[in-house]
Amino acid sequence: MSFATAAIASDSFAPLSVPVDAGRSAVRGEIAAILSMRHGGARPVRLRYELVGREQAPVVVLAGGISAHRHVAANAEFPEKGWAEGLVAPGRALDPASRRILAFDFIGADGALDLPIDTADQADALALLLDHLGITQLQCFVGYSYGALVGQQFAVRHPQRLAKLVAVSGAHRPHPYAAAWRALQRRAVALGQLQCGESHGLALARQFAMLSYRTPEEFGERFDAPPEVVNGRVRVAAEDYLDAAGAQYVARTPVEAYLRLSESIDLHRIDPAAISVPTVVVAVEGDRLVPLADLVGLVEGLGPRGSLRVLRSPYGHDAFLKETDRIDAILATAFRTPGENA
Amino acid sequence: MSFATAAIASDSFAPLSVPVDAGRSAVRGEIAAILSMRHGGARPVRLRYELVGREQAPVVVLAGGISAHRHVAANAEFPEKGWAEGLVAPGRALDPASRRILAFDFIGADGALDLPIDTADQADALALLLDHLGITQLQCFVGYSYGALVGQQFAVRHPQRLAKLVAVSGAHRPHPYAAAWRALQRRAVALGQLQCGESHGLALARQFAMLSYRTPEEFGERFDAPPEVVNGRVRVAAEDYLDAAGAQYVARTPVEAYLRLSESIDLHRIDPAAISVPTVVVAVEGDRLVPLADLVGLVEGLGPRGSLRVLRSPYGHDAFLKETDRIDAILATAFRTPGENA
Repeated sequence: MSFATAAIASDSFAPLSVPVDAGRSAVRGEIAAILSMRHGGARPVRLRYELVGREQAPVVVLAGGISAHRHVAANAEFPEKGWAEGLVAPGRALDPASRRILAFDFIGADGALDLPIDTADQADALALLLDHLGITQLQCFVGYSYGALVGQQFAVRHPQRLAKLVAVSGAHRPHPYAAAWRALQRRAVALGQLQCGESHGLALARQFAMLSYRTPEEFGERFDAPPEVVNGRVRVAAEDYLDAAGAQYVARTPVEAYLRLSESIDLHRIDPAAISVPTVVVAVEGDRLVPLADLVGLVEGLGPRGSLRVLRSPYGHDAFLKETDRIDAILATAFRTPGENA
Repeated sequence: MSFATAAIASDSFAPLSVPVDAGRSAVRGEIAAILSMRHGGARPVRLRYELVGREQAPVVVLAGGISAHRHVAANAEFPEKGWAEGLVAPGRALDPASRRILAFDFIGADGALDLPIDTADQADALALLLDHLGITQLQCFVGYSYGALVGQQFAVRHPQRLAKLVAVSGAHRPHPYAAAWRALQRRAVALGQLQCGESHGLALARQFAMLSYRTPEEFGERFDAPPEVVNGRVRVAAEDYLDAAGAQYVARTPVEAYLRLSESIDLHRIDPAAISVPTVVVAVEGDRLVPLADLVGLVEGLGPRGSLRVLRSPYGHDAFLKETDRIDAILATAFRTPGENA
């Protein structure tokens, strides 16, 4: 069964992909396609990917949070740092010498889609991309945060293409408290837009998001200095850090991308029972966005197909990016245990 | 020892107080005074109070969060609802038939003080008010949230005027994570002020604050409906509630009051060892602003003068306002146990 409802575009959106070249350690490509979107009908989209590792190796998709992208780690072709540096590396479960690692830019991440984007749309976009690349089946989809939601949708909609899912820090539906937090972040952006301060608003949204990604424990250790009074205003110890986080984010993120991918998290709802693929759910105790109880609910809904791993980390929702050794150990175990379709 | 550094104003700030009248159940008053402020030197301030209950009864001060005020509960003179309705009531520890209850507007709450306001300034303002009212000593200072910080400063600076302190959901210093959260709320206000969206900014700040006052558990129960797409934008279930909370707050709060009292929380730092008054510290497990660990630290610093009561409540930082029976029981016990100065 497949819900793929889109087709690679022919004339009007000519494929731009670079063919996969066995002699290179990494290739990037971009294809134009028409995607049938849940809230917008047929839309032209660009599918941008990076494929790293040995050509004959089993393919693993790695997808991260809404600000992640196709470049997971530095390599000979693309030496800039990636967002999963240390996890995709020699000797790791995600070693490009033993696995072919596919990552992609989420649709909407370029800011070109100004409409509600469902996680189902992302899953269908990936199916199109796999068609284009001639990849029949994934050994595993490793999804973290938003990537975990997309992985769940991919498992629901394209089960024949997936042997195993590892879903880290992402439940089958958003928690209402986390949804409210994100809604207010989007309001910060809207307020900035009202004031001709679009980047101000986006920076503020990102700063509030940082508080949801991290934990009081970490802030308590890093920012326990007294406040200062600067120009008659109180400035607390974490503000330099938050300024930097906001500025860095604004420099690389289109406002519409942020808004629509943030919304997309809140649109996500699947029935865990609809996932027929063996799934490892990874929860972080102390994650302020995705409570352990919701991931227990997901695993219960998966029945015998689901298993749960729980980490405790001062990095909360960001643990995937910080607890590299522990995440790697979980992935190594997951890759050793064959999925039922494998 | 007293740090009182201010004096009741004479000519230029004529007292406006209504004399306490034994025949009335409640009186309100307002006095003009000069207060020596930590970050601003001598400043004219208005001290607004409401005094309820039997004239010869022991006096208890009740002080709440930054949006609390002098009107704690409806009474014959002032029938509108107060902010501590249900706690100040017949049969309660804070029964106006058996106790004289004093509450006041924080300085700066009228928006007239546009400078950093220290919790020490609030404590000294209260000392001035007590001078004016001819109240030598308080049986108890019951402070919740910001009120707990003011109570701590009052205990440090005016110990001879206080027999006992009950400090609910307020530590000896702000937690760095909570301070960062408030700093971002102040930035939302500043963003609104960029072009004439001051009330938009204040509403957004309040909405973010609501997330820090309440808990995911409560939101999970109240707002577990799927999102809607309204005018092409995703709207989550809690947004109606947050809209109402923002609008209600904006209608009654001057922007400068919000900014300066929010800052004041972040300026608060006392040495627990400097409190010589018997103190009951009340902590709420699950309070996202004031972690239990910080209140344990406060109690440890108090040594034999301190005792700790811990509540678990789905209302988090707002438990004082919601768990009326349990707070009342704690107050009843505290009032029965005499303080060492009593």
